[in-house]
Order: sequence, then structure tokens, then C-alpha cells
Amino acid sequence: MPLRAQTPVNDPSYTTGGNLVFPKAYRKWVFLSSGLDMAYLPSARPGQSTFTNVFVNPESYDAFLQTGTWPDKTTLVLEVRTAADSGSIIRGGHYQSDVAHTEVHVKDTARFKGGWAFFGFADEAPAQMIPRNATCYSCHQDHGAVDTTFVQFYPTLLPIARDKKTFGAGYLADETKATQQH
Amino acid sequence: MPLRAQTPVNDPSYTTGGNLVFPKAYRKWVFLSSGLDMAYLPSARPGQSTFTNVFVNPESYDAFLQTGTWPDKTTLVLEVRTAADSGSIIRGGHYQSDVAHTEVHVKDTARFKGGWAFFGFADEAPAQMIPRNATCYSCHQDHGAVDTTFVQFYPTLLPIARDKKTFGAGYLADETKATQQH
Repeated sequence: MPLRAQTPVNDPSYTTGGNLVFPKAYRKWVFLSSGLDMAYLPSARPGQSTFTNVFVNPESYDAFLQTGTWPDKTTLVLEVRTAADSGSIIRGGHYQSDVAHTEVHVKDTARFKGGWAFFGFADEAPAQMIPRNATCYSCHQDHGAVDTTFVQFYPTLLPIARDKKTFGAGYLADETKATQQH
Repeated sequence: MPLRAQTPVNDPSYTTGGNLVFPKAYRKWVFLSSGLDMAYLPSARPGQSTFTNVFVNPESYDAFLQTGTWPDKTTLVLEVRTAADSGSIIRGGHYQSDVAHTEVHVKDTARFKGGWAFFGFADEAPAQMIPRNATCYSCHQDHGAVDTTFVQFYPTLLPIARDKKTFGAGYLADETKATQQH
């Protein structure tokens, strides 16, 4: 039997050159949350409003509910969609339109230093790993609530992590600082 | 064998008094889209910004991909969450916080006149049907793209419905009117 047949269907898959294969089934995975125009720096806002939907493979979601953290082979997909504000019967607010691009965060401890890597997809072709000096790595490392991921923005998972005491040191320091300022 | 064991796990379930049992598993169903402060009347905006996440049972999602419309026993869940705009490392935009309430739209042709009914949940207790003279029924009937549902706001399903030619007459009239005004 080929080795491939033993790999669970939602595990990350790579080309021989090490590019990540696009996880085409992600729209049937578990939805974690959506944001609109979330910004992390006090900089000027971009012109086009976008929603960011986050999905995770269901096996890892179930594991998180049990343990408060992510197992190996976890794949988080950030889907960026343009925000529409007119059309149909809409008189206010924003709804989701086309996909602009997707970003994928993969935990694969045998493959990646630090356990995790990011990949950016303009379409469904396999994508190269984003270099480790990109700011996504340091920001997730320093501020992600659990295991370099932004569980503070996933409302169904945040209470699980609190209960299981799986918050990282950087997140706890951020929270302490925020409390002292109030 | 009790009759209950033969009912597919995600089919709608009712109390003996006809109230809908809350579909507790909906966060593992298929996500259709999220909106922020979507409004349908040119009225004043409410003070608290909210996101609206929509989920559907996976059996009905798969059926829609094949047919462009909803099978009997379809359950759509609209989850309303407060929109937060500060906390953690956020310097702009909105992210999702607590559930404010949920609304459920069920297709059960043997039970409901017109095929569909709405239910509003303040918590997870079984809920009464929303009376048929409520505006949700007439607005969905007159403007929903497919079978009284707002598929025009579900970007993964809209192209399927266009391809399968399952748009309703009201939606097509709205689109014609919009085209003539441009």
C-alpha cells in the first residue's frame, strides 16, 4: 500500500519542492471567526475593506476542545474576502464578496523550526513558505494567546484555553499590561 | 428500535408542543458567510455593532452544491455576535465577541405552510415559531435569491445557483431593476 493512502485526508501535503498544497476542502472545515479590517498597527487604513474568515481542520478543532491547544498537523486557513456595502436590498453595513487571497498557518513539527510555518496563496497553486523573518512569525510568537495562534479572536476557543490554562507567556504579559492601564 | 434512532442527527427536532430544539452542533456545520451591521431599511443604525454568522447543516450544503437549492430538513442558523473594536493588539477594525442571540430558519415541508419557518433563540432552550406575519417571512419571500433564502450573500453558493438557474422571481426582478437604474 502506498504511504500516501495512510495520511489522514486533512493533513498538510507538500510538493517535492516543499511547497504547500492548497487545502481545497477548507470551506467545509470548522469556522473559527471573522473580522472586518482588523489592524494591528496605528497606521493608515487601506482603501478596500476586507473580511478575514478563519477555518481549521475538524480533527484539530476537536483536539483543541479536549486539550486547549493544537495537535501536530493543524492547518489554519485565513480567507480574505472583499467587503461589499451595496447590492441587493442592502442599505447599510458590509457583506462578503470575492476571495482576495488566503494565508495558511501549518503546524508540522518534524518539518518546521518552531513547529509552525506560514504560506500565502494568491490562487490554488502550491505556495512557497513565507520567510521566517516576516513579521507574521514574530507577532504570532509574541502575542498569540495559544501556541502562536490568535485564540483571543476565536470566541468559541478562548474559554477552553482559559479553562485548560494553555495561554502563552506573551499573551499573559499583554493582558497584565492592559489591566494595569485601566 | 425507537423512531428517534432513525432520524439523521442534524434534522430539525421539536418538543411535543412544537417548539424547535436548539441545534447545538451548529458551530461544526458549514459556514456560509458573515456580515457586519447589515441593514435592509434606510433607518437609524443601532448603537452596538454586530456580526451575523450563517451556518447550514452539512447534508444540505452538499445537496445545494449538486442542485442549487435546499432539500427538505435544511436548517440555517444565523448567529448574532457583538463586534469588539478594542482589546489585545487591535488598533482598528472589528472582531467577534459574545453571542447576542441566534435565529434559525428551517425547511420542513410536512410541518410548515410555505415550507419554511423562523425561530428566535435568546439561549439554548427550545423556541416558539416566529408568527407568520413577521416581516422576516415576507422579506425572505420577496427578495431571497433561492427558495426564500439570501443566497446572494453566500459567496460560495451564489455561482452554483446561477449555474443551476434556481433564482426566484423576486430576486430576478430586483436584479433587473438594479440594472436599469445603472
